[in-house]
Amino acid sequence: MALPKQVRVVEVGPRDGLQNEPGTIATEVKLELIDRLGAAGLRHIEAASFVSPKWVPQMGDAAEVMAGLQRRPGVVYAALTPNLKGFEGAREAGVSEVAVFTAASEAFTQKNINCSIAESLERFAPVIDAAKAADIRVRGYVSTVLGCPYAGEIAPEQVAAVSRELLDMGCYEISLGDTIGVGTPLKAKRMLEAVAKAVPLAQLAAHFHDTYGQALANLYAVLEEGLAVIDSSVAGLGGCPYASGASGNVASEDVVYLLQGLGIETGIDLGRLVETGHWITGRIGRANGSKVGQAMGCGR
Amino acid sequence: MALPKQVRVVEVGPRDGLQNEPGTIATEVKLELIDRLGAAGLRHIEAASFVSPKWVPQMGDAAEVMAGLQRRPGVVYAALTPNLKGFEGAREAGVSEVAVFTAASEAFTQKNINCSIAESLERFAPVIDAAKAADIRVRGYVSTVLGCPYAGEIAPEQVAAVSRELLDMGCYEISLGDTIGVGTPLKAKRMLEAVAKAVPLAQLAAHFHDTYGQALANLYAVLEEGLAVIDSSVAGLGGCPYASGASGNVASEDVVYLLQGLGIETGIDLGRLVETGHWITGRIGRANGSKVGQAMGCGR
Repeated sequence: MALPKQVRVVEVGPRDGLQNEPGTIATEVKLELIDRLGAAGLRHIEAASFVSPKWVPQMGDAAEVMAGLQRRPGVVYAALTPNLKGFEGAREAGVSEVAVFTAASEAFTQKNINCSIAESLERFAPVIDAAKAADIRVRGYVSTVLGCPYAGEIAPEQVAAVSRELLDMGCYEISLGDTIGVGTPLKAKRMLEAVAKAVPLAQLAAHFHDTYGQALANLYAVLEEGLAVIDSSVAGLGGCPYASGASGNVASEDVVYLLQGLGIETGIDLGRLVETGHWITGRIGRANGSKVGQAMGCGR
Repeated sequence: MALPKQVRVVEVGPRDGLQNEPGTIATEVKLELIDRLGAAGLRHIEAASFVSPKWVPQMGDAAEVMAGLQRRPGVVYAALTPNLKGFEGAREAGVSEVAVFTAASEAFTQKNINCSIAESLERFAPVIDAAKAADIRVRGYVSTVLGCPYAGEIAPEQVAAVSRELLDMGCYEISLGDTIGVGTPLKAKRMLEAVAKAVPLAQLAAHFHDTYGQALANLYAVLEEGLAVIDSSVAGLGGCPYASGASGNVASEDVVYLLQGLGIETGIDLGRLVETGHWITGRIGRANGSKVGQAMGCGR
């Protein structure tokens, strides 16, 4: 067992979270959310998605969000860029880094983005090349790493192969997504062990969903393996529209409580993070999906 | 690491769960709940509490519940018996085993049962003696093992000392309660290691609450230590009135999903357990506190 001394928490609430909430959130609310997250000590925030507003109207103000940010020194403000047009918009808006998105399941990529895994990687090649030319780092997301709603079980070797391809194409970090939250700790550990044979552990992140309540147990299991980057969403905002349960993204507050209890440094002020969770759920009229948030109250 | 091959899940919903729900539940609903739990494969069910109905009106029908049970072969129907009068009632009602309850925190026992830990043990001595004479097994609960709402941190050695006293008095098993759900995995592991020096691991159980969302991670940590008995509550019924959050007992469905994923045998049919969680929450008009229950739906 070798828990990491420090963990970088990648806050995905403003993008992955709000994108999967009903309705469209005002730009100024997004900006205040991002600012509060930075003030709470988050150093890596997924802020927007440069995708066609026809597909994802919730992210139609990506350029305004990036332009309106009060940038804090040392904070990465990232954006999802599914294609070259999106990348150009993100670059013009001055993003710190971009991200591309594929899956470990052929069935999922076909149903979700209407192409094969190989085709999805081909689409990203010009994005990654353009990012390299602009000296912008690219993060790669691989979804359905612990199970697929269409194909069921996913072989760890398949996750490893897709992750390796993203690394070879130029991604500096690969985020491994349990998109439908079906994983359990041994499965998560075995998947990570397989992927870590293809990609250095230091370049891997866990993006686990809490649909079946297993996210923190799974995170603890991969922390034991030494993994040191975790994606989470304040107040548990968002989730996966393909999972049948009400919950998706693991709540940042619950993750930070876990990490603090394990003596792992994050640089995050849990009290301010909890306040931020109460603030955003109040603004958008949604229940707070963080148990730590519920337990710690916040005067409400 | 040595995960157990089998785990006994002790279902506490009908007692610890319903006792902490608002309002009083009809006896026939309790009986049907217990019967459904037995049909789902639970083999150890905390069914009632023989305590003064002035204090705990929700359990005022303990004798009727025990009398009305359709007893299944091999299933333990247990009852809480805080004093000799309660024990006599439980014995007459034909319980399979009884349980006594103290804490690892002096401040908690003072505030909760208005006596010191030592005095609480003195009170139980005649209960345990009478149970031995009647050949009825006694389970001991120790609460606040990972933190106390009044005293804060609790030394693992204090948990070990109280657990050892209960063992010496004649308890066959000690259930270690994280009453306010504040624990994290390393803390849980260290506490268990300390207690296992005083009480054989095979005679210990984990009774963890999910108030801060940490219960499954903590359970995974103690499973890695070889612990093989887990208390949980169907649909997350009940909780601790001393914890500020909305949630308390970890949900049985989420525990069984974890155990199945780890390849650990429980003898429980998860589908029937999920159905039971939906049935009881429908009957008492409460949200289903199990994420597995929410995710697996059940046609509702």
